[in-house]
Amino acid sequence: MISATPLARKYGPQLEKEMRAILALPEETLKPLYGMMHYHMGWADPDFVPLHTYPGKHTRPFLLLLICEAVSGDWHTAIPAAAAVELLHNFSLIHDDIEDHSPTRRGRSTVWSLWGVPHAVNVGDIMFAHAYLAISRLREKDVSADRIRVAFTRLNQTCISLCQGQYLDLEFEDRAQVDMALYVKMIENKTAALIACATELGAVIGGASHAIVEHYRQYGRELGLGFQIMDDILGIWGDPRITGKPICDDLRTKKKTLPVLHALETERKRGKRTLRDLYSRQEIGDADVERMLAVLEETGSHQYAREVLSGYRARALENLEVTGIDNQAQQTLVSLSRNALDREY
Amino acid sequence: MISATPLARKYGPQLEKEMRAILALPEETLKPLYGMMHYHMGWADPDFVPLHTYPGKHTRPFLLLLICEAVSGDWHTAIPAAAAVELLHNFSLIHDDIEDHSPTRRGRSTVWSLWGVPHAVNVGDIMFAHAYLAISRLREKDVSADRIRVAFTRLNQTCISLCQGQYLDLEFEDRAQVDMALYVKMIENKTAALIACATELGAVIGGASHAIVEHYRQYGRELGLGFQIMDDILGIWGDPRITGKPICDDLRTKKKTLPVLHALETERKRGKRTLRDLYSRQEIGDADVERMLAVLEETGSHQYAREVLSGYRARALENLEVTGIDNQAQQTLVSLSRNALDREY
Repeated sequence: MISATPLARKYGPQLEKEMRAILALPEETLKPLYGMMHYHMGWADPDFVPLHTYPGKHTRPFLLLLICEAVSGDWHTAIPAAAAVELLHNFSLIHDDIEDHSPTRRGRSTVWSLWGVPHAVNVGDIMFAHAYLAISRLREKDVSADRIRVAFTRLNQTCISLCQGQYLDLEFEDRAQVDMALYVKMIENKTAALIACATELGAVIGGASHAIVEHYRQYGRELGLGFQIMDDILGIWGDPRITGKPICDDLRTKKKTLPVLHALETERKRGKRTLRDLYSRQEIGDADVERMLAVLEETGSHQYAREVLSGYRARALENLEVTGIDNQAQQTLVSLSRNALDREY
Repeated sequence: MISATPLARKYGPQLEKEMRAILALPEETLKPLYGMMHYHMGWADPDFVPLHTYPGKHTRPFLLLLICEAVSGDWHTAIPAAAAVELLHNFSLIHDDIEDHSPTRRGRSTVWSLWGVPHAVNVGDIMFAHAYLAISRLREKDVSADRIRVAFTRLNQTCISLCQGQYLDLEFEDRAQVDMALYVKMIENKTAALIACATELGAVIGGASHAIVEHYRQYGRELGLGFQIMDDILGIWGDPRITGKPICDDLRTKKKTLPVLHALETERKRGKRTLRDLYSRQEIGDADVERMLAVLEETGSHQYAREVLSGYRARALENLEVTGIDNQAQQTLVSLSRNALDREY
């Protein structure tokens, strides 16, 4: 997603300090419970020995802080909310890994694969609760009771969206036919909702008017949808040296992403079923991948996905522009969004 | 726990109406997701056909409503909070059933056993989020922003306690030695915290002073601990015609409840290990159960558990009394608490 090195230098230390304070061990008997959370966050190894690993991109909290800074000139007030969205994201990763049976994440074993499903369910639950607790800490930053209430409600609605999106995602695996409209609904809930929550909360805590808050929320939504379509494109046509994944990985694993759904739908209308048949095979070889790629070009699905992506990109930038805000933080947002949705692939 | 028939007639319909409104299907594509929640609540069968089954005792929400009525004369204001604690309780049941690998609950198949672990994890998560959403609905009842904030924070701390208690419970299965202090910490978090949350929120929403709120919270805590010890006693010495479970069920399943932990600790001090050896057997026969019962009498553990229970009972009633409140709702609380912790067994 966003290449965040300068932001990581600026916001990273305070964000991490806040998250560590929220997930601080309350008493010795609970050490393994908090240790499992610290492990997931990259702060400890499986024996709970402190560790420094790559903490992840922190896209959501950094967007939140940038927007709070853009609208108010200050970002420190929003640190607890930034921690909340990052912890919520991590709760959903812990549970998604159980649900998808994923053995690794960011090159490390997942919580369930190390400590079993029962502990992993419980570790996700407590991470979830700690994300809400983070919002309570806004009080210490003198954020008004009314804005804290809005933050609670928005975080809560976002949790509901995440679960609705996850339900659709789980269902997709079993469905013979997934249409593009349902796919967009799924990524809206599963991916875009949390990014929109982050961008909205940045504006809310910065004290922006309702209209400005709404523009930042829409910006986050379009950006989030764009991120996902970019991922979908990279998963098929991305350069393995850049993505770090095997070439055409999403085709080999038969993922139902937007370009594939477009191709399936287009072939169906034409009375063809080449891709559908290829997707029903048990094993996918190199020749199958070549044939899949040919179908995707023939149906114009590569071009279609690029157009959808540039639509999201244009609307994301438009929503930033109509805020009328123009300062350094806002310019950073604009250039980050441009770059993130315009990578070479 | 509490025999709630007259309360069920008084509070039941509005409570259920509120919970149904919170868990209402937002759109047709999500029908199975909401259907799984409705199934768990006893409102639908596994094909999502509407159904009326025994809804559970609703101990927590009814206590909350009774206390709101005792302190303010009205209980309608507190309906959303009552729904919140009941939904939170049900979230924890859905996840506990996964973690404990329980195939049935209240005589019906559990969510994970019908739809698999991935959906059950997600259904629990969304129920969790909807419990918080319920608190937001207090706004429509004209509860002050400040009291809503307290309700959020308390519900949140309770979620954290539940997970901490669940962690300890999961750990106990693997531990060779569990001491009584750790056991009490576990039941305090896993059982008493949510009951204390319910009794506290009833007083908060009723507008009680800090001192009165604190008495009701303590009352709930002692009552919750008492409930658990009562369960522990009934699990060994309860009349099967009353408990509906096989005689000495907790001994046959080698549960580490308070009387058993007391007996293990007493034997250890005396350099004996009869019960410990019996608990390490694979299969427990009738003769083993007889020997276990003999050890429990010899170590005075039956008597010990009764004394602990009457301590909790006395402190629960004491906390009710010092509120100085005396009206019909309060009298109902007193008699319910007396009866619940003083059943014949």
